[in-house]
Formats: sequence, C-alpha cells, structure tokens
Amino acid sequence: MRTVSENRCFGGVQGVYTHASEATGTDMTFGLFLPAEAADHPVPLLWYLSGLTCTHENAMTKAGAQRYAAEHGIALVFPDTSPRGEGVADDAAYDLGQGAGFYLNATEAPWAPHFRMWDYVAEELPRILTASFEIDEDRQAITGHSMGGHGALTLALSLPGRFRSVSAFAPIANPVASDWGRKQFAAYLGPDETLWRGHDASILMAERGFDGEVLVDQGASDQFLDLLKPEALAHAMAARRQPGAFRLQQGYDHSYYFVSTFIPDHIAFHAEALYR
Amino acid sequence: MRTVSENRCFGGVQGVYTHASEATGTDMTFGLFLPAEAADHPVPLLWYLSGLTCTHENAMTKAGAQRYAAEHGIALVFPDTSPRGEGVADDAAYDLGQGAGFYLNATEAPWAPHFRMWDYVAEELPRILTASFEIDEDRQAITGHSMGGHGALTLALSLPGRFRSVSAFAPIANPVASDWGRKQFAAYLGPDETLWRGHDASILMAERGFDGEVLVDQGASDQFLDLLKPEALAHAMAARRQPGAFRLQQGYDHSYYFVSTFIPDHIAFHAEALYR
Repeated sequence: MRTVSENRCFGGVQGVYTHASEATGTDMTFGLFLPAEAADHPVPLLWYLSGLTCTHENAMTKAGAQRYAAEHGIALVFPDTSPRGEGVADDAAYDLGQGAGFYLNATEAPWAPHFRMWDYVAEELPRILTASFEIDEDRQAITGHSMGGHGALTLALSLPGRFRSVSAFAPIANPVASDWGRKQFAAYLGPDETLWRGHDASILMAERGFDGEVLVDQGASDQFLDLLKPEALAHAMAARRQPGAFRLQQGYDHSYYFVSTFIPDHIAFHAEALYR
Repeated sequence: MRTVSENRCFGGVQGVYTHASEATGTDMTFGLFLPAEAADHPVPLLWYLSGLTCTHENAMTKAGAQRYAAEHGIALVFPDTSPRGEGVADDAAYDLGQGAGFYLNATEAPWAPHFRMWDYVAEELPRILTASFEIDEDRQAITGHSMGGHGALTLALSLPGRFRSVSAFAPIANPVASDWGRKQFAAYLGPDETLWRGHDASILMAERGFDGEVLVDQGASDQFLDLLKPEALAHAMAARRQPGAFRLQQGYDHSYYFVSTFIPDHIAFHAEALYR
C-alpha cells in the first residue's frame, strides 16, 4: 500500500492511499480520515460511498465531513466508485463503466473481470483498513450519496450485523424501476431481473429491513427525483416499520451543497449508534 | 364562555373553558395554555387535536407540552374530540359517536345535527380564541395524535394558508382503507366514498401537498399499525416531494408515553415556522 498524501486535518489526518486490489484486479485508491483518537486506540469507522462520476476525492474535499467526524472521534473512509485504468472497460456515457460501478459484482462482458465493487467494499477494503489502521471493526456504519446511497443501503441491508447504522443522501432508491439501474443492471448482471432485486434498496427494505436505525435525506428540489424514486423507499420503510427517518428537505438539489448541509446530522446520527 | 379552571403553569396559565357552540349545538369545553408573553402581546397558537376516547383533558395533562410551549412563547389549544351530553347520539363502540368525532361534519342520521367537529375546529373555535385571548391569528400551527393526527393533517391540507406547519403523532393516515375510517365515514358521511376522500390525509397529501413543513412521528411498535397505515402517508409525502420528515421511532407504542417523548421536537418544529 502506497501513501499518496497525508494532511493534518481537524487534529487528525486526512490520508489518500493506493493499493493493488485482488477484488478488482487493478490498483485502487481510497481516502481515509483518522481522528486524533486513532493515535491511542481503535476508533469507529463511517463508510462514505460516492455517486456517479465521483472518485475517492469528491466527498473528501466537498462534503465537509471531517470536522464532525473529528468531534465524534470517528474515522471516515472514501472508496473510489469503480476500478479504473488501462485494460478496464469503459463506456462513453457518464453512468456506465468507470465512475459508475454501482457497488455490485459484474458477471457480464466486458465488465466482469474488474467491476467487482461489492467484493471490494464489502470484503477486501474492510480487511485492509482494520489490518493497517487503528479501526475498530466491530463499530462500523455506512452512508453515501446518490449511487453511493444505493450502495450504502444495499450493503447494510444485505450484511446484517456489519453496520450499526445506515444513512443516505438522495439515494438511487428503486433502481429496478429506474433508468438509473435498469441500464446498468442489464449491462453488469445480464437480463435475469431476479438477480437485480438483490441490489435494490426499496426491495431489500421491504423484504428484510435493517436491524438498527436508518436516516435518509432527499432534496425536494433534486433535479433527479424521477430517477431516484424516493417514494418507493419511503413506502418500504414505513411498511416495514423500519426505525428511522425519511426526510424531504425543501429547496435542496442533488449537489454537494445539499450533502454538506446535512452531513452534521448524519454523523451525529451514526455517532449515536457507534458509541451506544 | 365560562371559566372552568385556571392554573398557573410554566409562568403562564392553563385554562379550561366551556361555551355554547353554534357548530355543534351543544356546550363545548376546551383547554388553553397561554404562555407568559400573552399578558403583553398576541402569541402564536399551536392546535393539538386528540384521539379516540379523549376529551380536551388527556393531552393537556399527559403530553407534557406546556413546558416547551412556554419556552417558545406559544399558546396551545386542546379541543374536545366530539360533542357530548344529553340529546347527542352515541354508540356502544369506543370508535364511533362521542369521543370519536373524526374532525368532520356528519351528514347522516343520527349524527348530523351535532357531529360537526370540522366546522367547530376550522371555523368557530378559531373565532372564539382570537376574540377572547391574546392569540395572533396569522401565526397558527397544528398537530394531533392518532384520530387527532388525522384531523391535524386533513385540516392543514384542506385549508391552505391557515397553518404555517403541521405535524402528527401516529396519525390515522389512510382512513378510506382502514377499519379506523371506513366504519366511521360510512356512518357519518354515508355510502358515497368519493366524499370520504376529502378526509384522508394520504389522498390529500398526494393530491395537494402542504405549503410548509410536515413532521410525522410513528412508533414502530405501535399496536395499531395495521389500522394507521403509515406507509400510505410516507409514500404520498415522498411522491409529492413534500418538505418534511416521516420518522419511525423504534420501540414506541401508541400511548402518551410516545407523545410526551417527542412533543419537544414537535413544538420546536412548529416554533421554527411560527417565528420565521
């Protein structure tokens, strides 16, 4: 693992690291914020999964999360959104291929060999983080934005016991019924739609629920509401009697200005679960 | 109007008053908390509508709302849930007749002459309050519990501009699809179901929305979830892109212990709208 950069930040360190990934067969880069407490003892970890077109860098620089993570003594990890580089398939569209891994393991050509972001985020990166840094693997939580909100919710709902809490900003909430989902699932997973259902937060919520609290924020003026389909997730949460909150935030759009406005609430929400 | 009682409470006065009502053709009793500020100038008003079997007294004594209303300088009014007394029709069931007015104007016998709680709460009582007390009629908000949550939401959604904000605790959210609703609407309004739709919060939310913020709390262990149908309202709020929050509160039931736990949040929520 190679250190790309390390910067002092709110009394802790914001690092960027690159490593060879077995899951994707490529080099992968991630950002990791460690609060001051990590110098003394393992700290809880909040995963932040990013959206379409993002790298490890967008949330790290624009979400303003480190201040609140430092206040609560929580580490933050910012994975990339797909494998990248020479020999990795791509598409001219912004919403397929590099920058659009959708947090699943592709089975179809030309994506199958490298697009294994599920295994990377669910299996490989956790092992690397707990082996290399002062991270308490028993205290993890997860959040994300847009495609990353989809990733956060589907991972948390599929891995019971892994995350103490889950939240999302403007998640792609019902991808099996959206052009943000159907196109990518067909490409990555093939035509059998029954396989898609395991990557749909609204379906997983309806069928399984989450053993903990769930917080979802959605901008009421989001330009992508018709693609995100928040009503499906809101219905599923209430029908499941899922503890948590689904909030529509008046006037907010899909941007990082929306994320940065509500990230303090989300980190406080996760801190409550991580320090319970 | 006759003063039944007045008690000093959090620096203000908790009063109970009885008056002859034109709307119901009976005497009606209500509770009113006025904060200290009402001695000097008109104050904003938060309506609290109660649930099945309640009188004006339940929330007044059990919700613990006065402390927070006093902190924010807000008046609270607690209307009764139906007309009462000799000559007023009733039913042996707890969910029909006296204590179960459902905040509508009955058109069917034997309920029609007196069961006009919509007119009472929407028209007559506001006039009495603003004429007799230091209430600022331009700054009103509304909340309620169970049947009262239904009342709060249907009034707020039907009277645009009247209330700056609306919230509800475990509202009867979709009465046209519930045994808490179909029975009463058939009795009070008759068999034409198109007339029922104007008293269904989920339908009104889907069709009209609310010009302001909406806050709904629902206990995830509520014993009446199948009758309340929160999922219909959660879907309608998200589909409408309604600013606000729909929260499922883990472990809470339908009781006033639930209401009293979250009343501080609700009063703070309304205060933000009332003092904007």
